[in-house]
Amino acid sequence: MRYGHRITHIAAKSEFLLSDVLRIGIAGLGTVGGGVIRLLSEQEDLLTQRCGRALAVTAISARDRNKPRDFDMPDATWYDDAVALAQADNVDVVVELIGGEDGPARATVETALGCGKHVVTANKALLAVHGGALAELAEKVDRTLCYEAAVCGGIPVIKAMREGLAANRFERIYGILNGTCNYILTKMEEDGAEFAAVLAEAQQLGYAEADPSFDIGGIDAAHKLTLLASLAYGCQVQFGDVFIEGIEDLTASDIRFARELGYRIKLLGLARRTDTGIERRVHPCLVPLRTPIAEVNGVTNAVVAVGNYAGQTMFVGPGAGAEPTASSVIADIVDIARGLAMPPFATPYSKLEEAAARPMDLWQGAYYVRLTVLDQPGSMAGITAVMAEHSVSIDSIIQRGRAPGAAVPVVMLTHKTEEASMTRVLREITALEPVTERPRVIRIERF
Amino acid sequence: MRYGHRITHIAAKSEFLLSDVLRIGIAGLGTVGGGVIRLLSEQEDLLTQRCGRALAVTAISARDRNKPRDFDMPDATWYDDAVALAQADNVDVVVELIGGEDGPARATVETALGCGKHVVTANKALLAVHGGALAELAEKVDRTLCYEAAVCGGIPVIKAMREGLAANRFERIYGILNGTCNYILTKMEEDGAEFAAVLAEAQQLGYAEADPSFDIGGIDAAHKLTLLASLAYGCQVQFGDVFIEGIEDLTASDIRFARELGYRIKLLGLARRTDTGIERRVHPCLVPLRTPIAEVNGVTNAVVAVGNYAGQTMFVGPGAGAEPTASSVIADIVDIARGLAMPPFATPYSKLEEAAARPMDLWQGAYYVRLTVLDQPGSMAGITAVMAEHSVSIDSIIQRGRAPGAAVPVVMLTHKTEEASMTRVLREITALEPVTERPRVIRIERF
Repeated sequence: MRYGHRITHIAAKSEFLLSDVLRIGIAGLGTVGGGVIRLLSEQEDLLTQRCGRALAVTAISARDRNKPRDFDMPDATWYDDAVALAQADNVDVVVELIGGEDGPARATVETALGCGKHVVTANKALLAVHGGALAELAEKVDRTLCYEAAVCGGIPVIKAMREGLAANRFERIYGILNGTCNYILTKMEEDGAEFAAVLAEAQQLGYAEADPSFDIGGIDAAHKLTLLASLAYGCQVQFGDVFIEGIEDLTASDIRFARELGYRIKLLGLARRTDTGIERRVHPCLVPLRTPIAEVNGVTNAVVAVGNYAGQTMFVGPGAGAEPTASSVIADIVDIARGLAMPPFATPYSKLEEAAARPMDLWQGAYYVRLTVLDQPGSMAGITAVMAEHSVSIDSIIQRGRAPGAAVPVVMLTHKTEEASMTRVLREITALEPVTERPRVIRIERF
Repeated sequence: MRYGHRITHIAAKSEFLLSDVLRIGIAGLGTVGGGVIRLLSEQEDLLTQRCGRALAVTAISARDRNKPRDFDMPDATWYDDAVALAQADNVDVVVELIGGEDGPARATVETALGCGKHVVTANKALLAVHGGALAELAEKVDRTLCYEAAVCGGIPVIKAMREGLAANRFERIYGILNGTCNYILTKMEEDGAEFAAVLAEAQQLGYAEADPSFDIGGIDAAHKLTLLASLAYGCQVQFGDVFIEGIEDLTASDIRFARELGYRIKLLGLARRTDTGIERRVHPCLVPLRTPIAEVNGVTNAVVAVGNYAGQTMFVGPGAGAEPTASSVIADIVDIARGLAMPPFATPYSKLEEAAARPMDLWQGAYYVRLTVLDQPGSMAGITAVMAEHSVSIDSIIQRGRAPGAAVPVVMLTHKTEEASMTRVLREITALEPVTERPRVIRIERF
């Protein structure tokens, strides 16, 4: 690989280059694009000092040139077509803020690298799906492909994993990777409100998209986890191997019961290396109250990395928004301006492991199970018999609000068991006659 | 400046260099030195992969060659004299783990840079006092001087401030920068114990040094704050400008009263740019319960950076110890091996501002004041009259445990006032006849 020989070889230094302007082309002028342009303009002097050279926006591109925008358009060449911008002679770095895992975003990044330009992107979907091929292309042309803004907005967690904690093997990494979900869960707890009502409110406030499925379905968090897992475990970008469950089916009663039992519900992304493959999963979890991760509320994100030397470090901050995301986009540009460069996933992509995905069936842990059961003699006996048969033992039960002949909620916490056993238990319990609804099951994480 | 031209100038690439071993000389084989040697040995393959080249310890130095050590000594050239190690031909990077702001540590670093070697150090005292001259020397010879391990042990906060958040102006930065003090304060609260008893226990457990004065006096935290403030505000390393108070005078009753009022006492380091200079201060603070910083307990450290784009980010982790510190030392070595380099304080030192220190007299905020007052008619009238005269108004008072004729504690929280007024109030109150002890004053920080 060709990255990083500079400081071992000072004879080749060529100082004059640092007085050169770094020429930036921005593809996509939505919320984040606007934030990037405002930041570059408002903090021009500061950035020039920190980079040792000027940064200038020399080209811009968006779908609609005449759309009203709440920032001053820079004096730059306009391109209707982002791919044309990616080919422009007057651009050194292409900033891709179009979004989407394929289409113009992918074409723009491929073209930019192909034309020997550095790329900075906030596009987690693109990297989680095509990151391998793009990394190999970047390495081939000796250019950088940077994506700090793709994971956890303003928190510089990619740099922390790739560089600051580079000396560690990671026992596990986990985090709250999606601000929309965390906001919804926090509001459901605060207001005792149901999912649909809180989602609608979040959409009105701009905390959730008109089509929220990527967020609430866990896809967005899984994109980010894919990138973090690759950096932590030196494995390839394997989005398809992430086990994903969203938060759509959680109810206000789940949140209330969890709290009564000493837990809070969070959508976590978690990764861990095991003897049977790399575990990568995104799903709602019960986490014990008063743990640091349980105290991260609202749109805030957090990543916890447990390194075998560094110990447990936690990185907390705003997970989205124009300004935090712009902060990370510009951090990548500053790296490029300063000449800091390495392969996109720290190690040349061909040397990364194509890691086996650990089957979720092998996961072991305790479970929260909420059943809706007819309040009649023998209901519980049937359920507990099924559990005993599969060696799933019960830690505690909440059953109250007697309503003879009607359906009532029954909540159980199990002792540690294996996912495969739990799956069998659920299949059989669901078929029992007094069980009137599909059981709700949430994994418990203890740290 | 000559850092960072590489990726704008690929014609000069010289791939073969990356297959070269990076040769490391370690000066100082105490706790941290041992951790560094163990890490390099245990994770040799991992580091080779992540760096794209091998790391090898080729030289070591310590005061006593024959001292029993709990790690295997590497097969390396021994030097009785660290300065001789710093001159050795077979060393590319000198790791200074001797400690102390002058003497052999300073001589070793100066010699290493003078001989064209990179330097990695965990020595906050050296950098806080002589960082300016050393940075200029490093820049002159185009070598790196890295110090991630000097601030907050295993938390990669230097990298975060210097690179990850490089796009931001900082409204403020603050943190719990000394694990010994935070451990003592946490134990004082948990056990209701007095300072001296907890300090003795901390010394037995190895959480406090035999001579704890640098830790409990706030000097160590001020060293770290000096470095963080320089990175955040682009100012020179001006340790002498830090206002410092330690935790030695805090009592169990202060911690109890604070809690009753909704606060926890933390030793914080805080920096802020104001129109009247850069505020840099280390002192005990009352921080509101349930704020993130109030929840950081025990030996854990935390830094909160409030950027104008990134928003509030927080970095939490182990603040000291052989293994976390080794993690950060090796992170710096990995940067060097990967060819990532920049001036020690991000901007060439000569371009950093020689910033005026903001006089502490101008600080404005609320105060906790604990008085010991004879329980007799008119005592409080005299005190409140002095406060009124200097326009210091009282937010709340705790007075209980009547003991006519004897001294009782009286605790007040003031409204926001200026330090200069408070100083005058204290001088006059101390002189009042019913006030039997020097008042204890602690500043209140609200975030």
